Amino acid sequence: MTATDPDAPGTAAPPAELLPTLAGHYYTDPAVFAREQELILESHWFCAVRSADLARPGAFRTATVGRESVLVCRTRSGAVRAFLNVCRHRGAQLCTAESGEVRRSLQCPYHAWTYDLDGRLVAAPNMADMPGVDKRERGLIGVHVREWLGYVWVCLADEPPSFDETVRGAVARRLGDEDVVERYGVEGLALGRRISYDVAANWKLVVENFMECYHCGTIHPELTEVLPEFAEGYAAQYHVGHGAEFGSDVDGFTVDGTAGFGRLGGVGEEQDRRYYAVTVRPQVFLNLVPDHVIVHRMFPLAPDRTLIECDWLYSPEVVESGTDLSHSVELFDRVNRQDFEACERCQPAMSSRAYRTGGVLVPVEHHIAEFHAWVADLLGDPPE
Amino acid sequence: MTATDPDAPGTAAPPAELLPTLAGHYYTDPAVFAREQELILESHWFCAVRSADLARPGAFRTATVGRESVLVCRTRSGAVRAFLNVCRHRGAQLCTAESGEVRRSLQCPYHAWTYDLDGRLVAAPNMADMPGVDKRERGLIGVHVREWLGYVWVCLADEPPSFDETVRGAVARRLGDEDVVERYGVEGLALGRRISYDVAANWKLVVENFMECYHCGTIHPELTEVLPEFAEGYAAQYHVGHGAEFGSDVDGFTVDGTAGFGRLGGVGEEQDRRYYAVTVRPQVFLNLVPDHVIVHRMFPLAPDRTLIECDWLYSPEVVESGTDLSHSVELFDRVNRQDFEACERCQPAMSSRAYRTGGVLVPVEHHIAEFHAWVADLLGDPPE
Amino acid sequence: MTATDPDAPGTAAPPAELLPTLAGHYYTDPAVFAREQELILESHWFCAVRSADLARPGAFRTATVGRESVLVCRTRSGAVRAFLNVCRHRGAQLCTAESGEVRRSLQCPYHAWTYDLDGRLVAAPNMADMPGVDKRERGLIGVHVREWLGYVWVCLADEPPSFDETVRGAVARRLGDEDVVERYGVEGLALGRRISYDVAANWKLVVENFMECYHCGTIHPELTEVLPEFAEGYAAQYHVGHGAEFGSDVDGFTVDGTAGFGRLGGVGEEQDRRYYAVTVRPQVFLNLVPDHVIVHRMFPLAPDRTLIECDWLYSPEVVESGTDLSHSVELFDRVNRQDFEACERCQPAMSSRAYRTGGVLVPVEHHIAEFHAWVADLLGDPPE
Repeated sequence: MTATDPDAPGTAAPPAELLPTLAGHYYTDPAVFAREQELILESHWFCAVRSADLARPGAFRTATVGRESVLVCRTRSGAVRAFLNVCRHRGAQLCTAESGEVRRSLQCPYHAWTYDLDGRLVAAPNMADMPGVDKRERGLIGVHVREWLGYVWVCLADEPPSFDETVRGAVARRLGDEDVVERYGVEGLALGRRISYDVAANWKLVVENFMECYHCGTIHPELTEVLPEFAEGYAAQYHVGHGAEFGSDVDGFTVDGTAGFGRLGGVGEEQDRRYYAVTVRPQVFLNLVPDHVIVHRMFPLAPDRTLIECDWLYSPEVVESGTDLSHSVELFDRVNRQDFEACERCQPAMSSRAYRTGGVLVPVEHHIAEFHAWVADLLGDPPE
Repeated sequence: MTATDPDAPGTAAPPAELLPTLAGHYYTDPAVFAREQELILESHWFCAVRSADLARPGAFRTATVGRESVLVCRTRSGAVRAFLNVCRHRGAQLCTAESGEVRRSLQCPYHAWTYDLDGRLVAAPNMADMPGVDKRERGLIGVHVREWLGYVWVCLADEPPSFDETVRGAVARRLGDEDVVERYGVEGLALGRRISYDVAANWKLVVENFMECYHCGTIHPELTEVLPEFAEGYAAQYHVGHGAEFGSDVDGFTVDGTAGFGRLGGVGEEQDRRYYAVTVRPQVFLNLVPDHVIVHRMFPLAPDRTLIECDWLYSPEVVESGTDLSHSVELFDRVNRQDFEACERCQPAMSSRAYRTGGVLVPVEHHIAEFHAWVADLLGDPPE
Repeated sequence: MTATDPDAPGTAAPPAELLPTLAGHYYTDPAVFAREQELILESHWFCAVRSADLARPGAFRTATVGRESVLVCRTRSGAVRAFLNVCRHRGAQLCTAESGEVRRSLQCPYHAWTYDLDGRLVAAPNMADMPGVDKRERGLIGVHVREWLGYVWVCLADEPPSFDETVRGAVARRLGDEDVVERYGVEGLALGRRISYDVAANWKLVVENFMECYHCGTIHPELTEVLPEFAEGYAAQYHVGHGAEFGSDVDGFTVDGTAGFGRLGGVGEEQDRRYYAVTVRPQVFLNLVPDHVIVHRMFPLAPDRTLIECDWLYSPEVVESGTDLSHSVELFDRVNRQDFEACERCQPAMSSRAYRTGGVLVPVEHHIAEFHAWVADLLGDPPE
């Protein structure tokens, strides 16, 4: 029973302006989430850890990637390695802390099986009683690793997809040029602030929210003040290579439009006074403004729970100077809170009969349909 | 192994005096509960909201009906409408508060799609870009509404069962006459007190408890003091048209038997000094005494969790006078707590092998079998 | 991808020194746990309650055995009886408290059906209306009971396995002699201390941990100080009849090696200065030292949750004297905490792909394979 005029029954086909979304069960069904863990989160390049958080040899971090706890560490030679965080003997987690530092080896605290930072088994009690055991066979299970933009990306697939194609390529395709992102020198930036958000919503709602700006006029007063074109509903991601321009009376990408900091080294006139947003599937958002870069990493934990870690990166001089970053950080912190509240407001409705076949995308959201097709295709679902 | 004499094995058929109950899994199995949500709670008339809680145009309430959040509001013309609480665009909940008031329209706080209080889509950003979109097609999904006894009853079925037959009829059949309930003028009463109970038990245990009085002598000392016949175990609901009579030394339906308030307008000699109880399936209990009316609305949330909202209604003069209602309210508040504790004590045993095929109904509980048959029949289960 | 040399692929068969464990899903899958509840916990003798906790007629305790709440009580004649804790009428739990005492009968607090302490229905309201009801048919559902070592063991199977074979025999086979355990006079000991541990790990991880001492050198500094041979990794349970010898400079089984209490009555020279550990499947650990006995009872509650109740038993004179037991108790309390932390560290890794086919048992753990075979066999699984 739709609240419509009686002569306009609610079952007519939607007009061309409205594209269908994924059906509601994609956001609630544990079986769908399990397949996403396997076929998306554990099969693609996943941005797990900030490289600078592994400053010294022996430093480690643990991260939840799909269903796995992954241990990322820096070796004695300065390389980064990543492993499933599971001892090969009886399955204890090697490291339960989120971060820490060891000297030369990772020792299981249960039976003292000991691995070097390259994951090789180097010692275990009573080894002399096991002459048939080949230590080379019992190393930690490694996962593929790449470093880019100052982050460690891991892939749990046996044969990872091309990093250049799926990660670097995604950024280049969005920015219209392989070189644009390099101008921000993200690798060389320093962490000014990190905020973690525990969001009661499916990770795809967060992606969809980030991809469109149709909501900006409604929920982001501070952001549309800085980027007036966002009030029109066109996301920066709508056009290839487009960066949203600062308002004429805006001095910087700050909560009150006051000046930020100096332009990052390689940022040219073309990028100045502009905000670029990039979605790197499945779980990274990149936000580029002249004086800083914001990186979101999502960690989907359940169909209705996503942990999001957001880093604000500045030039090392800015961070080291101890300058007050609060006006700068507060803008996107507010945007984040506004967005995640909106996502949480959608989650309960995903199980409603009103969303059984999904909702609709208006024209300025049409690019989200491609994300939906990507998900459905990876899950092996028939086209909707 | 039953604690019986060896010559009386525990497997004999029960005697005619004992009728079987539903099997234990009816009270614990999530699949049974899901079918109850669909085939009972979302398919029958469900008493959702008190009409007076929607006093002015624009007032709204949200209520959980089966698996759905339902938004009930009063329109500008003073009518009551109800909708699935889901925006037709991308599925955000329109109202997350339990109650509130808007001026003229319901605006989705995500993308500002705006509906009038009759559920019609009246505005959305960028509508000019979507000439093919017919707003009449995109209204809120309405649900059927009826008002009776001062409450808003909703039905989520496409074709609701007859309200007269299943709701008014249930009351008339119990009271023996269509007119009896009208004498209490329930629509005109005022809310004296509302108490919510969060009960860790299946909703059917609560219904069964309300239907019988075999437990009254054991757990309701105050109630059996006021209604001595309840000590015999015969529920008021056992005989058509029967109201349990107050004890000869009892002045009113209060926790200590002291006088209550004056008789409600239309209550005649026949109903005076009597308590009538009515179960309106699936989720309403009506309690009638000469000077007030108590209405229970159940909101089943999980196989083992039921929210119960209980209203004590008095004549407007009594409520407006500010008279102390505590002796009056306390009687049934205690009864509620005693009953719900008993239900919570049964819930864990429903999964015991001892209850695999259910328990037994003694003669004064035999009318519960008809409730069980109603449930099993609606769920499409073969007769037990 | 294993961190191995490229010429030693990780797929080679394990050498003879390494035996496989159970696969990871045995520790996480709710379906496996449900089968364990039915086929192991509810089908074997289960040590539920300490006899002395039922000191007087009418004393009762409730215990979770598999999926059931079991009510254990002492009758007027001093015997012990056990029943499913469910009223035969409408399924209320008779006793919700963990312990208590009644005078002559167990009365259901819902409708007052009343059972004597032998479980016979002796009274119910309105019985006169039910002449066809044979009270002998409506008694509580009893479960099998045995008392041994001062504990009440129950079995929920219709036809329990032989107590002598599966319980007494397990102890005798471990200790090499039926008489050894009798020398400690466990029945006559008094409770010095009881500590409950709520462990976030599967019960089988706790069993495996108790069965081996390969971890002792890593996590039990106090224990290996007292029992130096444990640093070698050989559990006391590894050899039939073996008790681990105290270190030469150790005076007693205490946290700092200081003297404990006098030898228990029947303990001979052979057992003096030795620690014996016995696993009585599925859920009891027995620890024997010259001056006290420690009994662990496990109550598996979920695939990833096990409640463990640990009793420290001393001669009645020691307990009555009020002597400070803390040095004595603290040793194994620390061992327990160290062990249970290790088990909790394994639980999350059980669902990792790294443990999909399980881990490995080194030679000093090989006896655990027999436990795994016992479990798999009872669950009706094909041999791994």
